[in-house]
Amino acid sequence: MPQKITPWEVEGYINYDKLIKEFGVQSLNNLPKEFEKELIFRRGIVFAHRDIQRVLEAKKNKKPFVMMTGLMPTGRFHIGHALIVQQMIFWQKLGAKIYITIADVEAYLSRNQSFEDSRRIAIEEYIKNYIALGLDKKNLEIYFQSERSRDAKKSNAYYKLQNLLARHVTFNEFKGAYGDVTPGKMLASLLQASDMLHPQLPEFEGGPLPVIVPVGIDQDPHLRLARDISKRIKSPEFVQLSSTYNIFMPSLSGGKMSSSDPNSFIALTDSPTDVENKIKRYAFSGGQQTLEEHRKKGGNPIIDVSFQYLRMMFEPDDKKLAKIESDYKSGKLTTGELKEYTIEKINAFLKEHQKKRKLTEKQVNKFLM
Amino acid sequence: MPQKITPWEVEGYINYDKLIKEFGVQSLNNLPKEFEKELIFRRGIVFAHRDIQRVLEAKKNKKPFVMMTGLMPTGRFHIGHALIVQQMIFWQKLGAKIYITIADVEAYLSRNQSFEDSRRIAIEEYIKNYIALGLDKKNLEIYFQSERSRDAKKSNAYYKLQNLLARHVTFNEFKGAYGDVTPGKMLASLLQASDMLHPQLPEFEGGPLPVIVPVGIDQDPHLRLARDISKRIKSPEFVQLSSTYNIFMPSLSGGKMSSSDPNSFIALTDSPTDVENKIKRYAFSGGQQTLEEHRKKGGNPIIDVSFQYLRMMFEPDDKKLAKIESDYKSGKLTTGELKEYTIEKINAFLKEHQKKRKLTEKQVNKFLM
Repeated sequence: MPQKITPWEVEGYINYDKLIKEFGVQSLNNLPKEFEKELIFRRGIVFAHRDIQRVLEAKKNKKPFVMMTGLMPTGRFHIGHALIVQQMIFWQKLGAKIYITIADVEAYLSRNQSFEDSRRIAIEEYIKNYIALGLDKKNLEIYFQSERSRDAKKSNAYYKLQNLLARHVTFNEFKGAYGDVTPGKMLASLLQASDMLHPQLPEFEGGPLPVIVPVGIDQDPHLRLARDISKRIKSPEFVQLSSTYNIFMPSLSGGKMSSSDPNSFIALTDSPTDVENKIKRYAFSGGQQTLEEHRKKGGNPIIDVSFQYLRMMFEPDDKKLAKIESDYKSGKLTTGELKEYTIEKINAFLKEHQKKRKLTEKQVNKFLM
Repeated sequence: MPQKITPWEVEGYINYDKLIKEFGVQSLNNLPKEFEKELIFRRGIVFAHRDIQRVLEAKKNKKPFVMMTGLMPTGRFHIGHALIVQQMIFWQKLGAKIYITIADVEAYLSRNQSFEDSRRIAIEEYIKNYIALGLDKKNLEIYFQSERSRDAKKSNAYYKLQNLLARHVTFNEFKGAYGDVTPGKMLASLLQASDMLHPQLPEFEGGPLPVIVPVGIDQDPHLRLARDISKRIKSPEFVQLSSTYNIFMPSLSGGKMSSSDPNSFIALTDSPTDVENKIKRYAFSGGQQTLEEHRKKGGNPIIDVSFQYLRMMFEPDDKKLAKIESDYKSGKLTTGELKEYTIEKINAFLKEHQKKRKLTEKQVNKFLM
C-alpha cells in the first residue's frame, strides 16, 4: 500500500520506525514513572518526541509549562480523537496549563466550512466530549482561531504574531512542508504556528516557557515549520517547542479513520447496537478463515483492529491484555470471542461516557473563554 | 526614462493619460461644486477614480460613508504626504467617517522596521502633522495594524477578515499584482485588503456601506486586488470599494521623493533656511540657461518643480497662479523670481504649520484610539 504523510492526507499502513528516522524525531525512552502509569505511554501509543526534556525539567523544577493542541471542528468525534484528549488530561494533571485552539479559520480556509458550522460542531462533537472525558476547566484556555480572546491585548498579540512570522519563512519552506500550497493553506499554517508559539508571549504566560504539543505523526510538518521559524526570531524570544507523537488509532478496516465514513470509526455517541454492528461487520480481523485453521495456526493481534482498540484504549489491565494476546496467538481465543469482549469493553466505556456527556450542556459556556 | 509602477517602486516621469488607460480607471469629471472649491480636485491633482458615484450618492442622500487610507510609518513627513492629508480633511468635512491605518505590520514585513520604531515615527512624523494640518478627532479612527482596537470584538473581526480573504485569492493574482511576492508581502497585502474592507463589517460601521480610498496611482494594484477578492465573498457582504487617484508631488529634482534623501523633498519640519537652500539649489527649473535666453524663449512651467509646488499646494489663488504661469511662459518672470516667490509661500505655510504642530503634543493620545 502506498504511504503518504502530509498533514492533509494519510494513507495506508504506517511504518513507525521508518518515520522516526525520516522525520528526525526521537524515540520516547526513560520517562518518569508518572508516565509509565499511563497506558498511552507505557504501551508506546505515544512513541516519539522532540525536545520533551524541556518540559520534564520544568515539571521537575516546578516551573510553569504549557501543553498546546488543536481540534479541527469537522466530522464526528470518535475514539481516535479521544487519544489526544487522554493526553490533554494527563498533561493537565501533571501541572501544565492547557491551550486548545478550535481551528475554525483552518476549517474555513482548507475545507470551505462556515464559521457557524465550525462553532456548532466544536461544541457538540468536541467540547462536550472533552468535558465528559474529564478535562478540567481550571488551568485551561479553549478558544476559536477566529476570535482569540475577549481581551483585546491578547487578541492583538496573537494575530500580530501570525503576521510577524511571515517575515521569517519562504514559499519554498511551505512547499517543502506541505507539497502543494495555496494562500489559504499558508495563512492557516501561519496561524497554527501562532497557536503553538503565542503562549510564550508577554500577554499570555508572561514570557518564554516550555510548550509541549502532542500530535499525530502526520502533523509533524506543522511542528517543524513552527520550530524553524521561531529559531530565527530574536524579538519576541521563544523557547523551542517540544512535541510528542502518537500512532494512529486504526479505522475499523485497518486504515485511517475517515470522518465522512461513519463505518470507519466508533463515535463516542454510538449506541451499543452501533458498536456491535460495526465491530462484528467491519472490524478487520487477524484471525484465520475457519475455526479449525484458527485453532491450529492462531490469530495475528498486530493487524487485528479489535485487539488494537483494546491495547490502545479499552483494556487498561496489562495482565488481561497479555492473556488475550497470547490466547489469540495460540488460537485458544477465537475472533468471535475477541470481538464480543471488545464490544463489551467499548460499550461499558461509552455507557459511562454518554451518561457524563448528558451533564455537560450547562458547562460548555464555562469552558469557552 | 524607464517607467515602472508597482506599489513598491515608482521611477521616472509618469504619463498619467496612459496610466488611466492601462489601469482601467476613470477620469474625474462633473464633480459636485464642493469638490471644485478644493484646489486638489479643481486643478486635477486628484485626476482619476473608480466607482466614486457610490460615495457621491451616499453624500447626496445623507447616508453614511467611510474614507479609508493608510500611512507607512517610515522616513520624514513631507509635502507629498500632505497631499493625502488634505484629501482626508476634505472628506472628513464632507461627512465621511475617517479610518486611518498605521501600517506597522507592513513596515515590519516589507522593510524590516521594528514595531517600536514604527510607533515613534507614526506619532512624531505623521499624527502630529495630521493634527496640525487640521484633521479633526471627531468621526475618526486611527489605529495600528498590529493592534487594531482596544475592543476585542473589533480586533477579532479585523484579523478574521484578513484570514478569510486568503481563501478567495490565488498566488497568481499576487504575482500579477506585485510581480515578485514573498510570504511577508502576501500577508501585508491581505492585511491591507482587510484595512480597506473592514469598515463594512457589522462590528465596525454596522454593515455594508460605501468606502472611498484616496491613493497615489502606484497603489492601485492593492485596490484592484481588494476589489477582485471582495467581489467573490458572499458572507460577509461588501459594497464594492471606491477610490480616487492623485498625481505624485514631484521631488525637488522632478522624480519621486525618496524618504532616504532629504534633499529630494521639503519636510514639514524644515526651517526657512532649509527651504531656501533646497529650492535654490535642488528644485528643477523649467527656465532657460541664461537670463537673455529666458526673456526671449520663456520658461516651461510643466516641468518646473517650483511652479508645480505652487500649483499643487502653495498658491490656492487661481488668478495669481494663472498670472505666474503666463509670466513664466513669456519670460517676464525669471527662474530666480519664481523660486523666491515659492520659497516665500512655502515658508509662510510652514511657519503657520510649525506653530500649530507645537500644540499637538498633548492631543496625540486622544487621536490614537
